[in-house]
Amino acid sequence: MRVPAEPAGPFPDAWRYCVGTGRLDLALRRDHQDSLALLQREIGFRHIRGHGLFSEAMAVHRPYTHLGARHVHHSFTHVDQVVDAYLAAGIRPFLELGFMPGGLASGDRTVFWWRGNITPPRDRAEWAALVRATLAHLVDRYGLDEVRTWPVEVWNEPDLPAFWQDADEGAYHRLYEATAHAVKDVDADLRVGGPALSPGAGPDWLERFAEFAERRDVPVDFVSRHAYSSGPAQHVPFGVHQTLAPAGTLLDQFAEPRRTLKGTRLADVPVHITEFNSSYRPDNPIHDTAFHAAYLAPVLAAGGDLADSFSYWTFSDVFEETGVPTALFHGGFGLLTHRQVRKPTYHLYAFLARMGPGLLARGDDHLVTRHPDGRVTVLAWAPVDPSGATPGPDGHTLRLSLPAGGRGEAFVRRLTVDEEHGNAYTAWRRMGSPRSPRPHQLDVLHEAAEPARTHRRLPIEDGRVELALTLTRHEVAFVELSPVDDETPPWWDERRLLGRESE
Amino acid sequence: MRVPAEPAGPFPDAWRYCVGTGRLDLALRRDHQDSLALLQREIGFRHIRGHGLFSEAMAVHRPYTHLGARHVHHSFTHVDQVVDAYLAAGIRPFLELGFMPGGLASGDRTVFWWRGNITPPRDRAEWAALVRATLAHLVDRYGLDEVRTWPVEVWNEPDLPAFWQDADEGAYHRLYEATAHAVKDVDADLRVGGPALSPGAGPDWLERFAEFAERRDVPVDFVSRHAYSSGPAQHVPFGVHQTLAPAGTLLDQFAEPRRTLKGTRLADVPVHITEFNSSYRPDNPIHDTAFHAAYLAPVLAAGGDLADSFSYWTFSDVFEETGVPTALFHGGFGLLTHRQVRKPTYHLYAFLARMGPGLLARGDDHLVTRHPDGRVTVLAWAPVDPSGATPGPDGHTLRLSLPAGGRGEAFVRRLTVDEEHGNAYTAWRRMGSPRSPRPHQLDVLHEAAEPARTHRRLPIEDGRVELALTLTRHEVAFVELSPVDDETPPWWDERRLLGRESE
Amino acid sequence: MRVPAEPAGPFPDAWRYCVGTGRLDLALRRDHQDSLALLQREIGFRHIRGHGLFSEAMAVHRPYTHLGARHVHHSFTHVDQVVDAYLAAGIRPFLELGFMPGGLASGDRTVFWWRGNITPPRDRAEWAALVRATLAHLVDRYGLDEVRTWPVEVWNEPDLPAFWQDADEGAYHRLYEATAHAVKDVDADLRVGGPALSPGAGPDWLERFAEFAERRDVPVDFVSRHAYSSGPAQHVPFGVHQTLAPAGTLLDQFAEPRRTLKGTRLADVPVHITEFNSSYRPDNPIHDTAFHAAYLAPVLAAGGDLADSFSYWTFSDVFEETGVPTALFHGGFGLLTHRQVRKPTYHLYAFLARMGPGLLARGDDHLVTRHPDGRVTVLAWAPVDPSGATPGPDGHTLRLSLPAGGRGEAFVRRLTVDEEHGNAYTAWRRMGSPRSPRPHQLDVLHEAAEPARTHRRLPIEDGRVELALTLTRHEVAFVELSPVDDETPPWWDERRLLGRESE
Amino acid sequence: MRVPAEPAGPFPDAWRYCVGTGRLDLALRRDHQDSLALLQREIGFRHIRGHGLFSEAMAVHRPYTHLGARHVHHSFTHVDQVVDAYLAAGIRPFLELGFMPGGLASGDRTVFWWRGNITPPRDRAEWAALVRATLAHLVDRYGLDEVRTWPVEVWNEPDLPAFWQDADEGAYHRLYEATAHAVKDVDADLRVGGPALSPGAGPDWLERFAEFAERRDVPVDFVSRHAYSSGPAQHVPFGVHQTLAPAGTLLDQFAEPRRTLKGTRLADVPVHITEFNSSYRPDNPIHDTAFHAAYLAPVLAAGGDLADSFSYWTFSDVFEETGVPTALFHGGFGLLTHRQVRKPTYHLYAFLARMGPGLLARGDDHLVTRHPDGRVTVLAWAPVDPSGATPGPDGHTLRLSLPAGGRGEAFVRRLTVDEEHGNAYTAWRRMGSPRSPRPHQLDVLHEAAEPARTHRRLPIEDGRVELALTLTRHEVAFVELSPVDDETPPWWDERRLLGRESE
Repeated sequence: MRVPAEPAGPFPDAWRYCVGTGRLDLALRRDHQDSLALLQREIGFRHIRGHGLFSEAMAVHRPYTHLGARHVHHSFTHVDQVVDAYLAAGIRPFLELGFMPGGLASGDRTVFWWRGNITPPRDRAEWAALVRATLAHLVDRYGLDEVRTWPVEVWNEPDLPAFWQDADEGAYHRLYEATAHAVKDVDADLRVGGPALSPGAGPDWLERFAEFAERRDVPVDFVSRHAYSSGPAQHVPFGVHQTLAPAGTLLDQFAEPRRTLKGTRLADVPVHITEFNSSYRPDNPIHDTAFHAAYLAPVLAAGGDLADSFSYWTFSDVFEETGVPTALFHGGFGLLTHRQVRKPTYHLYAFLARMGPGLLARGDDHLVTRHPDGRVTVLAWAPVDPSGATPGPDGHTLRLSLPAGGRGEAFVRRLTVDEEHGNAYTAWRRMGSPRSPRPHQLDVLHEAAEPARTHRRLPIEDGRVELALTLTRHEVAFVELSPVDDETPPWWDERRLLGRESE
Repeated sequence: MRVPAEPAGPFPDAWRYCVGTGRLDLALRRDHQDSLALLQREIGFRHIRGHGLFSEAMAVHRPYTHLGARHVHHSFTHVDQVVDAYLAAGIRPFLELGFMPGGLASGDRTVFWWRGNITPPRDRAEWAALVRATLAHLVDRYGLDEVRTWPVEVWNEPDLPAFWQDADEGAYHRLYEATAHAVKDVDADLRVGGPALSPGAGPDWLERFAEFAERRDVPVDFVSRHAYSSGPAQHVPFGVHQTLAPAGTLLDQFAEPRRTLKGTRLADVPVHITEFNSSYRPDNPIHDTAFHAAYLAPVLAAGGDLADSFSYWTFSDVFEETGVPTALFHGGFGLLTHRQVRKPTYHLYAFLARMGPGLLARGDDHLVTRHPDGRVTVLAWAPVDPSGATPGPDGHTLRLSLPAGGRGEAFVRRLTVDEEHGNAYTAWRRMGSPRSPRPHQLDVLHEAAEPARTHRRLPIEDGRVELALTLTRHEVAFVELSPVDDETPPWWDERRLLGRESE
Repeated sequence: MRVPAEPAGPFPDAWRYCVGTGRLDLALRRDHQDSLALLQREIGFRHIRGHGLFSEAMAVHRPYTHLGARHVHHSFTHVDQVVDAYLAAGIRPFLELGFMPGGLASGDRTVFWWRGNITPPRDRAEWAALVRATLAHLVDRYGLDEVRTWPVEVWNEPDLPAFWQDADEGAYHRLYEATAHAVKDVDADLRVGGPALSPGAGPDWLERFAEFAERRDVPVDFVSRHAYSSGPAQHVPFGVHQTLAPAGTLLDQFAEPRRTLKGTRLADVPVHITEFNSSYRPDNPIHDTAFHAAYLAPVLAAGGDLADSFSYWTFSDVFEETGVPTALFHGGFGLLTHRQVRKPTYHLYAFLARMGPGLLARGDDHLVTRHPDGRVTVLAWAPVDPSGATPGPDGHTLRLSLPAGGRGEAFVRRLTVDEEHGNAYTAWRRMGSPRSPRPHQLDVLHEAAEPARTHRRLPIEDGRVELALTLTRHEVAFVELSPVDDETPPWWDERRLLGRESE
Repeated sequence: MRVPAEPAGPFPDAWRYCVGTGRLDLALRRDHQDSLALLQREIGFRHIRGHGLFSEAMAVHRPYTHLGARHVHHSFTHVDQVVDAYLAAGIRPFLELGFMPGGLASGDRTVFWWRGNITPPRDRAEWAALVRATLAHLVDRYGLDEVRTWPVEVWNEPDLPAFWQDADEGAYHRLYEATAHAVKDVDADLRVGGPALSPGAGPDWLERFAEFAERRDVPVDFVSRHAYSSGPAQHVPFGVHQTLAPAGTLLDQFAEPRRTLKGTRLADVPVHITEFNSSYRPDNPIHDTAFHAAYLAPVLAAGGDLADSFSYWTFSDVFEETGVPTALFHGGFGLLTHRQVRKPTYHLYAFLARMGPGLLARGDDHLVTRHPDGRVTVLAWAPVDPSGATPGPDGHTLRLSLPAGGRGEAFVRRLTVDEEHGNAYTAWRRMGSPRSPRPHQLDVLHEAAEPARTHRRLPIEDGRVELALTLTRHEVAFVELSPVDDETPPWWDERRLLGRESE
């Protein structure tokens, strides 16, 4: 495959626009903050989205009685600590308004181990006041220019009865309307959107949302949905197994909103895939594997053509929807385990973060980009069988003819993640799956999580380097070419160093 | 008052043996860990004690079903993170075993906003297994030598129905017996004790505990109780007012166990006051004041004569028994507010941490110690009216004739905390009581929390410095004397510096 | 004095454009880097300028012999470490090209304890090659956009025989011409200037430089000179005494280049005062005093009207022109001593860094500015007698009628530096001038270096606060007013807190 | 080779007793301190020794004139900063007293680029006063208990005219005598020794030193010498080539003092090899290679039998005896380059630091130890041809039958350093030997410096693991065995994970 020397255009960075996190109060934790700092240093997402801004643990809505009358205090003790932590890590909120504060809920149905209340507000005006007070406080503390860059999403997966009582569509429309107006009351340029649909919602749900918005003239600055590709869960204690659909299914889900909204008033608003992953379960060990990185690689490489963002759910295993994990590796969504062990999919993102802004080529097993300083970078991945019936091939070779600035030779650096490298899960299994690894074992896991690194020189001929890459099973590789500018002084004869081949 | 030149004996450091904290999982938080690091750097406690080792959020007891049968996993994901954080900060656990895991509870009665279950175990054998598994895990991870230094206390305030269902004394004895044996099963040299009585428990409760222990030959390596001096709470929204008894009441409570146990088999076991404070409410602003430091100063100065430890409840406002605080200053127990603003009582402890190991003198308004390098240090405090009916006197003067090594002059350094200095609460009130201070306001509060610092020289005559200290209302002062060893070179004439008095 | 409510214009920040440092290789030191990090966090200068880029310790010019012929390597091992450290601290180089590398020097005359060679190049082409190689390397490593923001100054004080052999003016013109062209060879938009004159150079020196530049059509992108106000040095071992001229002398020197160049081709180029201080000696204790801060305050307040920058010489006592200091306080130029003890003049800068961008008023003893968020800030200073014959007055009162947004009351915060506060020198003298303070003494000095902080409330009447400030001898004060937005809840009665006045 | 299950004895840690550094003032540098912190975190030496305590840059000896008379100030500004930095990094000085301060020297002969004066004192009493003042100051600042643990060595290589004028042996004896008494004047328990001989000094030099000490009854608490194994230098610009003698030569030099002193009064004093390396040149690239680690491995494994310490010269390339290095890799002595790139020999030390305290076996190509927790660790190295005529073998296999606690299987972790792994020099050469690597290149070098890491499981049979290791050319490997304690739950079937072999 002959890669062109000039970029056809930019490589879209929709992949880094947003990343998911567990319920917001987990951001108070040291482990979470350390993981976020690492993530931002090595990858660098723009926004972060999680549930539970109005959950009990965030403690914003605080009714009280004074002189016999009921009042509500809006309290931001934890909100401020969470947002301060995000901004300190160089990442901005993608706000999700929900779930329902206990003191405002119309029922007691909850979701998750941590009991997020999923019922409509008992009093829509009090809800609107909560929304206004929250946004106004954020604007007051962080400035209008800043908060205008934070998308505001109304609720989560209202099409599922688990997340919105009876999946009552009309009730969601009413909630959306009240919320959107409350947001705009604070500032007309704040950006509000929804409906954060689950993968199971058919296109008609979004169509009806668009019609409702048009009919009632309700502001919708972006639309959002989620994408997952797993089949039903087969449970074992503290875990599940699931089948997966081919990765293309995810791309198809990314594409759905633009397809559906074509011709509507919402045709041109940004589309945010505010959650995606293979399995939607935080206890499926597939998330911990090299298979998973190879499975998702083509999705990350191509998703930016179809949506304005697609947000990996989630960056960290500090996440407790089904309870506190009982073992270091437990199938959590995280790119990082507790205590910052990098998983293969973390490296997939870290590799992507090293790609250049110019798109040179993209194929079934590779992505090639160029940096402003001339470096050419390749992301390559081995094919996988998503059915899981068979492992991926032992070896998969691709040949790329790459443009190379300069003459002479190129320095070629390769980072590899596969079943044996950059793979702490394999090491952890081999150690005997220690649920609570000791410090020494954690050190070994951190080491085992480092990608393999090799380097060599290749000749540049006619401005090109012929690169043949053989990928092992489930490998994801990052390759970087830089022309060698040789500063070896003329008098230096390496062969005179002891232990060298005399040639 | 002529202070002797030689110490009568050591100044006991029972005051630093232990400090309290909120429920254990709060130790996962960054704010908590930052506060603990600061505390240990500037004060340095030995042990830390909090509730909720077996609470839902710590998630140790994990029942599950496999092949149709019920099993229990013991999981230490959070326990390890908490204990690792303590040890990293240079402080060791004082373990409190409780409350009851949901899956093991015999009822659904709970205490606190965070719902600690206070009912006896449904199955005492399963409880014992939980205790054994926990201690065994700790020994395995941290080593036997280390864990033997951690006292293990059984439950909290079983004499109160709020903390132990029906305050059932016999049920506590049974729980204690099962627990103590389970602890000793792991290692005979682990130290177990109780009964962590509330201030309201009369001496007979402890007598009966001693009799029970003797009768059943149950190991008791230490006894524990709590001490508070406040009257009943008068509520306002998000706060209370309370009266206080004189500080001596606390010393009287410290002294009670040794008095009660005299002549019993437990006469010589260590006595730990595992909680003390003025008010037992985490929403009484008295905790935030200079008054509070002056009120407690004589307790800290004298308590070590009466008990082996007395543990301030608690070091940080990261504490949520009545819910998440709605304002930075809210009357929390903490020596430190959220985000590490030092309160006056923090400084009282920090001053105590600068005292020397040799006790020179102690009086109603002062404590004098000596350091091995010869420095003499004074802790002085203004008298207070605990009834609160009147403020303390505007000025209170004490005169000390202090021994001073060397001749010539002494360098005298004074740190002051009072209504205007080292007092962020005063500044916060003056700012308008901002519930959620902005970063700039936080900076000002951190500044306002610094003690006033002055220094001067005093003459040494006949090996003595005559120190007259006038304390302002509610002042606590730290004074340090060091003999001046003058290295000013003979040619230096300070009067030749521009702007100096020509003399 | 009635301060207007609206700014007449911006307060120029020429004072922060640049700061001086000792010879460049001192930037390799940990103490230097720690001091720079502190300085930038609390004050924030834009550029940093020091001598010795081409000194032996920087080791750039490296002649060697190969196959019998002489060659020169240009080596940037230390240059890169120094510039990396600057940029990491958030400050950019103000490059000064000099002194002469030993291998290129035409003679062996040196300046300073560290022996900077001050002779012209033996070979002007080799010098030009050195300049080109250095600038080209910097552009290559840091990028052209970055390096274009770094002014490049040619040599230092060529009008003094101590710094330029025989103060040979023609030789300097030739050096300047070769250098300026070499710089422009690398990139036409790099900014080159000079002649970095000493205070003693009369206006004619600069006139002749302008004529030479015009005649030879040599690029001059800025002009530079130095300003000092001290008389001759009276030596004692390891120190000096000097008289000072009034501070206005410095402003007069700042103004000189624009005055002199009026009507010439250089009339509009920026004027940089690339060094200024009171005394030009690094062993005059006046630098350590509160007197010094009060003396310089009006210079900093007004200097920005006269020049584009005036660079305090220097930010740190890590400075060795007369040898390694023999005592912590030794009269060094530094705003900070070794080990980061803040001097009064450091605080003067830190206060200035807290002033707002809008200039409300300026007088003999004050500067008033406004922040975008409405805060009004005052810098006030006591008058001094520069002759040193008499100390400044014991008390000096100024009355300002300040505009205050809001109604009700203002929170007024005051920071004070004077003979007793924010004054580690006074503490150090009182301790007995310990040359090599022990860790405990250093802690006390760091504490003594903190300004006194007080706060109070003042009423706002007709949108104004009447502020009366009484300054102690040699005081510099920073005062900040913010309107109080009172969030005290209606139910709160502070008088019910124990120990309060019942009113 | 059947390795015994029980240690024959302890593995001596003479290898970590001391490490060398460049001239002492380099410890003021940030790069030096960062390197030292890394070294201590990952390896952990006890003492550090370097030249130049009394050099001009340390500026201790400060003569001045007052009232017409000459006086000497002893100034510790830099000494304190250096020693503070050492202790903060957890390492203690091994003091070397030298070279001669300019103001006390009898001549102007110097050594090194930084001009250490190597002439005897002009006035032995003034030298003794300098020594006394220095030790007394250290005792005063750091405490007597601390300083008694610091060996004090008198001068460096007095048998070489480069280091001691005319290599005048009698003059050294006189210097030693005056110095040893001056040290003991401060405290009789300070430990003083010498004579720090170069490798070229024959045994008779040491014999005469012992005789002199006995004759004059001069205290000698330890004896010291140096060991190097290189032939003469063949120079190229900024570098050299040298031959090496077999590594056993070094062991022979380590053994020499005990052999020589047998039967003398010094027979039982500790022997410190206060410098050793292969080449004695700081510009021989052999120091940067994998060959070097394999060459030295047997020396480190066996040296502890022959001497009480052998101190690698030096831990960092921040070292300037022949001038400031002109390229990142330049053949410096350092275990670490500038900016903390780890060299192969660094890893050799880091591997050694992971060995256990119990010695199980030692052979020509391996060392086997046991940890208290049962882990068995192997250090293995490939044979090298020290003549350099031929490279080491491509593959070298060793077979070890290792004792393994537990049953079932062992987790086997291997870290490898060879020509391709843990070898930044190879990467740097491949990049084109960039003298001044850019930040991106430095990142790649840091990555390339990481050892290769692999892991597998091996069966335990009859309490033993049969380990076959094949080493590549110049490989040094660390292998660790831990018995697997399998916590995989009974229900877990890894084959059900997608992408797994179905078996």
